[in-house]
Amino acid sequence: MSMKITDIIAEKRHGNALCDEAIRLWIDRLEDFADYQNSALLMAIAMGGMDARETLTLTDAMAHSGDMLDLSRYGDATVDKHSTGGVGDGTSFIVMPVMAATGKICAKLSGRGLGHTGGTLDKLESIDGVHTDISEERFFEIVDDIGIVIAGQTAQLCPADKYLYALRDVTATVDSMPLIAASVMSKKLAAGAKNIVLDVKTGRGAFMKDENDAKTLARTMVDIGRRSGRNVSALVTTMDMPLESAVGNAIEVRSALDVLSGRERGDVYEVAKALCAQLGADGEAFDRAIASGAAYEKFEQMIYALGGKPGCLQNLPQSKYKKTVFAPKSGYISDINAMTVASVTLDAGGGRRVKEDAILPEVGVKLHVAAGGRVDKGQPLATLHYSRVGDEELAQRLASAFVVSDEKPIVRDRIVCKVE
Amino acid sequence: MSMKITDIIAEKRHGNALCDEAIRLWIDRLEDFADYQNSALLMAIAMGGMDARETLTLTDAMAHSGDMLDLSRYGDATVDKHSTGGVGDGTSFIVMPVMAATGKICAKLSGRGLGHTGGTLDKLESIDGVHTDISEERFFEIVDDIGIVIAGQTAQLCPADKYLYALRDVTATVDSMPLIAASVMSKKLAAGAKNIVLDVKTGRGAFMKDENDAKTLARTMVDIGRRSGRNVSALVTTMDMPLESAVGNAIEVRSALDVLSGRERGDVYEVAKALCAQLGADGEAFDRAIASGAAYEKFEQMIYALGGKPGCLQNLPQSKYKKTVFAPKSGYISDINAMTVASVTLDAGGGRRVKEDAILPEVGVKLHVAAGGRVDKGQPLATLHYSRVGDEELAQRLASAFVVSDEKPIVRDRIVCKVE
Repeated sequence: MSMKITDIIAEKRHGNALCDEAIRLWIDRLEDFADYQNSALLMAIAMGGMDARETLTLTDAMAHSGDMLDLSRYGDATVDKHSTGGVGDGTSFIVMPVMAATGKICAKLSGRGLGHTGGTLDKLESIDGVHTDISEERFFEIVDDIGIVIAGQTAQLCPADKYLYALRDVTATVDSMPLIAASVMSKKLAAGAKNIVLDVKTGRGAFMKDENDAKTLARTMVDIGRRSGRNVSALVTTMDMPLESAVGNAIEVRSALDVLSGRERGDVYEVAKALCAQLGADGEAFDRAIASGAAYEKFEQMIYALGGKPGCLQNLPQSKYKKTVFAPKSGYISDINAMTVASVTLDAGGGRRVKEDAILPEVGVKLHVAAGGRVDKGQPLATLHYSRVGDEELAQRLASAFVVSDEKPIVRDRIVCKVE
Repeated sequence: MSMKITDIIAEKRHGNALCDEAIRLWIDRLEDFADYQNSALLMAIAMGGMDARETLTLTDAMAHSGDMLDLSRYGDATVDKHSTGGVGDGTSFIVMPVMAATGKICAKLSGRGLGHTGGTLDKLESIDGVHTDISEERFFEIVDDIGIVIAGQTAQLCPADKYLYALRDVTATVDSMPLIAASVMSKKLAAGAKNIVLDVKTGRGAFMKDENDAKTLARTMVDIGRRSGRNVSALVTTMDMPLESAVGNAIEVRSALDVLSGRERGDVYEVAKALCAQLGADGEAFDRAIASGAAYEKFEQMIYALGGKPGCLQNLPQSKYKKTVFAPKSGYISDINAMTVASVTLDAGGGRRVKEDAILPEVGVKLHVAAGGRVDKGQPLATLHYSRVGDEELAQRLASAFVVSDEKPIVRDRIVCKVE
């Protein structure tokens, strides 16, 4: 090897762009270098930045660090959707079934990970009988059969991202535009879909507090995708207040079913619709997929394909206890703190702090009001679903998430902009 | 602990100054944090810098990370000298004996380390019978008796610097002004002397290629010393060409003896004289200490106190073979590449690449000409002293270190400036 890792680190430390060869050598041989060298280079990148060419090469090298899911047999019909940097990601359960209903192929691999609620897989597995750890053979069987599946990763996708993310998490190098973009896009490229829509969150409940940062990230990721031969676009959406009317696992599935069955609308409906539009299903097609029951049917088919027991969607797990919090006065909902709602769910057992944590699938928070809405004193604001004695105390914190004002607040649009 | 290491790293990563509490916590608990966290913070410091207050606190925390040599019994009489960032450090063997001859206390602890030649201890131990690993009790006995000793570190001085330097070396974070200043000055503060002169090298053969960088480093270190209650000053000196007329171990001792006995003058004499002036011995006192033989006597006393056998200074180890290189034409010596001479010495076995390397004390290079001087074709330029068959090939590289020109070159002054 002519190039040494210390030379590569020194290059970036002095503010220079890394050549493609150096970036590929680093990612290809990550395990050969010491953690302290990799973390030093991550810090140099976080502080010194990377230009578009470097970020593209980094993403490509990371994408190829493990298996690449080959969806080429489905031609250009494959779609994928990814939400980044927010609390919760409830739109997948709406976007994927709608797209499947319009004839697209939704073959999605998901991880578990940490968070205020479980990951997509935990949410699915809160449904009686559902198992998401299926073989690759079964995965493609389901896709061929019904055109939609969300399953656990059997293949080893993006091991470089897994390693680097763990290192970034403990070295204060998470908040770096090129590193975030490469992390998200390497996984999307490895996951194989031709058409990808990104939902980049901004605002108080999001990682990117600043709207311009979110736009830059969206632009960076879209460019990477395009240059990698994928059809990628993004929406920048606000995450000051919760997007869904529920936060948890089974409780989020129930909320998604309400949307898919046309019983619930609101912000999540509008955002899902806009995301589907980016994937080629216009507003009319979206409304039709919902109204006809076709999207609901696709979701139901997928659940049964994954082992769901008869009647499982009508019998989602219920928490042992519930406690509702009420409006302390009449007025307008001027604020619902998404982070507070999320932390209450986590503390009630709905998410994981460490990988080994078990999740209580039935707990979470159901919101009864939306931001900007009018409430009367004593009207229910939200209900805490909990299963452990003592967790009723979390209701007090949940109540603190709401601000009721006399004046009607100005609520900013959920969708800030499109990036194409 | 209220402050987390990731918070400290994040603070510096975002370009903020670290509070004293954060810096002290980091250094006090270095071993509790992972190498990859410490290296990430080092990179953030290397790229984000540190202000004077931060650098002072870092230095102080590092100085107190181990034992502090207590020289207070000698009041204000203690002196120390440190050369930084150059190839070789031959002036110690002249400055220390001269200062001792003028009544100052020279109680110096030295390390071994890696390098083109051995460290100061290796050079001393090339003398028959000399052992520098003496007890603290014996160390002070010698100081009380003759006022001069250079010995190995029995006490654990600056373990934080030792750890951080090793980490910097493999993460491309060596070239950082605050980290260099803190590394040098923490050791000087822990070593206990009241009066300290620093010789900061600049030029091709030095770590600080740029003169202004060397001046800034000197200024930073002098300020740290002053604010720590020490009487510190610095000289910035050039290291384009070798300072001493010899590079090696025993061969450097011989060269120092030539200066101490008044047989040799040249640049090393002038630089040593200027360094002594900073420590309070003016030019007249310096010349007298040499001319009277008092300085030579002090060096000799120290050697015998460290176990030197009778006649050892007259019988320094000799290499098995010698090979001299000659001027290829008549003209002026316009260049002697210090790095080339150093690398020849290393390859002949005179230094260490890794800690375990054994040193051949008798090998090295003796220069017969100085920069700017006139030579005739065929006149000896330098002699390679070597002991292993095959090393005679190094003579060719040694010859390439010399450039002979028709025009008389302009040789810049050795002493660039004083920083007080």
